[in-house]
Amino acid sequence: MFPPTDELNVVVAGVPYGYQGDFSDGRWLTEQHIAQIEGVGPIVRLEHPSVHDLNNGYLVERKPHAVLVETSGILKDWESLPAILFEPAFRALLNPELRLVQSASAGVQQIAPLIPEGVTLCNASGVHAPAIAETVIGSILVHAKLLYRRREEQRARRWTQLPARELAGATMCVLGTGHIGSAIARLAQALGIRTIGVRRNPGVTPGFDVVVGASGLDDALTRADYLVIACPLTPETEGLIDADRLARLPKGAYLVNVARGAIVDEAAMIEAFRSGRLSGGFLDCHVREPLPDDSPLWDIPGVDISPHDSHASNLLGDRQVELFCRNLKNLINGEPLINVVDTTRGY
Amino acid sequence: MFPPTDELNVVVAGVPYGYQGDFSDGRWLTEQHIAQIEGVGPIVRLEHPSVHDLNNGYLVERKPHAVLVETSGILKDWESLPAILFEPAFRALLNPELRLVQSASAGVQQIAPLIPEGVTLCNASGVHAPAIAETVIGSILVHAKLLYRRREEQRARRWTQLPARELAGATMCVLGTGHIGSAIARLAQALGIRTIGVRRNPGVTPGFDVVVGASGLDDALTRADYLVIACPLTPETEGLIDADRLARLPKGAYLVNVARGAIVDEAAMIEAFRSGRLSGGFLDCHVREPLPDDSPLWDIPGVDISPHDSHASNLLGDRQVELFCRNLKNLINGEPLINVVDTTRGY
Repeated sequence: MFPPTDELNVVVAGVPYGYQGDFSDGRWLTEQHIAQIEGVGPIVRLEHPSVHDLNNGYLVERKPHAVLVETSGILKDWESLPAILFEPAFRALLNPELRLVQSASAGVQQIAPLIPEGVTLCNASGVHAPAIAETVIGSILVHAKLLYRRREEQRARRWTQLPARELAGATMCVLGTGHIGSAIARLAQALGIRTIGVRRNPGVTPGFDVVVGASGLDDALTRADYLVIACPLTPETEGLIDADRLARLPKGAYLVNVARGAIVDEAAMIEAFRSGRLSGGFLDCHVREPLPDDSPLWDIPGVDISPHDSHASNLLGDRQVELFCRNLKNLINGEPLINVVDTTRGY
Repeated sequence: MFPPTDELNVVVAGVPYGYQGDFSDGRWLTEQHIAQIEGVGPIVRLEHPSVHDLNNGYLVERKPHAVLVETSGILKDWESLPAILFEPAFRALLNPELRLVQSASAGVQQIAPLIPEGVTLCNASGVHAPAIAETVIGSILVHAKLLYRRREEQRARRWTQLPARELAGATMCVLGTGHIGSAIARLAQALGIRTIGVRRNPGVTPGFDVVVGASGLDDALTRADYLVIACPLTPETEGLIDADRLARLPKGAYLVNVARGAIVDEAAMIEAFRSGRLSGGFLDCHVREPLPDDSPLWDIPGVDISPHDSHASNLLGDRQVELFCRNLKNLINGEPLINVVDTTRGY
């Protein structure tokens, strides 16, 4: 029966991507985090094993009912990721008693097919949104205020006034109106930017002046001084922003991708940067990660590359634990979980 | 009698500091601006003379009732300013019929003593605020998100995750809760920053979680992750932020000065940057401007210097004209003017 009345076995394994606290061999939870998780209820039995041991075949003591894992990189052997669980170790956690896989990642498309029937996959949507939104607004301000050029002037001790632009009055088109898209739009609105959201099912959404459906995308693009990609990668969105759609943007538009590289036709995007049709961009995710050494994107003027860490935040660990505890509580109480992923859609 | 019934003579002279449009010899008004000013009423007679001519003794055709002038730099021979009116030319505009001097600058302390009795001096407070607020938030985000370091990593083609901080949850103390201070605070609040305003007469002010009086300053400083100076330079504020007050800030605090250099003890500030007590700062104004070539401020890590142009914006000219037209209308209708300066206080 579920929920169990005697004990709820919980495993936390793998370091959330971008976590800034100390961790030893993947054991990142602080004493306070552990107290929070154990504080969810007296039946909670928490195990927080070494990632190294798990990747080398160690099996957890009790078959988990709920796990919190960083799923980004599970299928890839990313050297750049700290203490990540790999696929065999992840699969070893799957068992007939498992009810909840709480991912520490917002994008779980790749991991979704691994989840057995009867197990609820929840993503970490919302955990990363505040920091990502800050980073996106920072990149947009750097561009509008010519801050990199400003820095060069300063280094040369030159007192040079620069023709900075104002964001107020510009228009931003955001693909995807989930936590991340909404958080970006909310800040953009505060800056006086008009925000157009594009989503599968249009409707009133906080942070957006207007939300249109997929059929409104092409028209929205023609008005987008800023195009922000913040939607899941799905068969519908893969390659969505192709050469034709890039050509619809106003000359000098700025492109932000904080979703997945494959949503944009990379070759067409590079051409749009080079031709000056796009004045710049902030690219946090890429078709291949890490971005290959020979990628032309590294040094196109106006294009800022970040290593898929726009969500980096000192508050990330606390938010992951907070979300996990809310879902553990809901699981115990038989209430609806938060951030449930439709594994057939992948988000 | 005033207002005059036959004609209202209006002179616009000197280019607003930071204006980005074209101007020929100081004639910066666009056709649309001219139409807007002349559209205020049939009695308006606009003259928009050459600054070069004015500085060389040319006298305007009709003694003005109202002038819009850039007053920054009137008393200094700033080579860096484009087409600025100098003091003798400004004095030549003063006449017994003059009612309104609309400055294109927010800080008019230096010019206030030149204004004859019976003439209302209005500043451009509010015109610059949106762009300044954007610039300040940009500088804060560059610092928190390590964007300059990010750029260096990119140049070296390094895929390096950086320990970016989140602004949410930080505290900002803003000295001065006028247009500029409020605009900064409003954006900071949207970013989840707690805002404390400090002003002569505390009271509820949009953008601020709390506003304290001068007696609350020292306590507010102890909580200020960000200290933003946005108050007028007056005898009370000159040197207000001295070594003792800088020492009250939390270690690692960030200092923003978009007001006047002399409000801060420059030597003490430099020492605070060097010792690491302050982690960085954005300094748009300086005790001496242009900042001298040998100033140590040019290359202190974390300190961003800008040449008193944080208000730079493509929308600046439009906003100046809009404000001036509102005040011309008020003048004609005998209604209270906007942004009236108390010339005894200087703001």
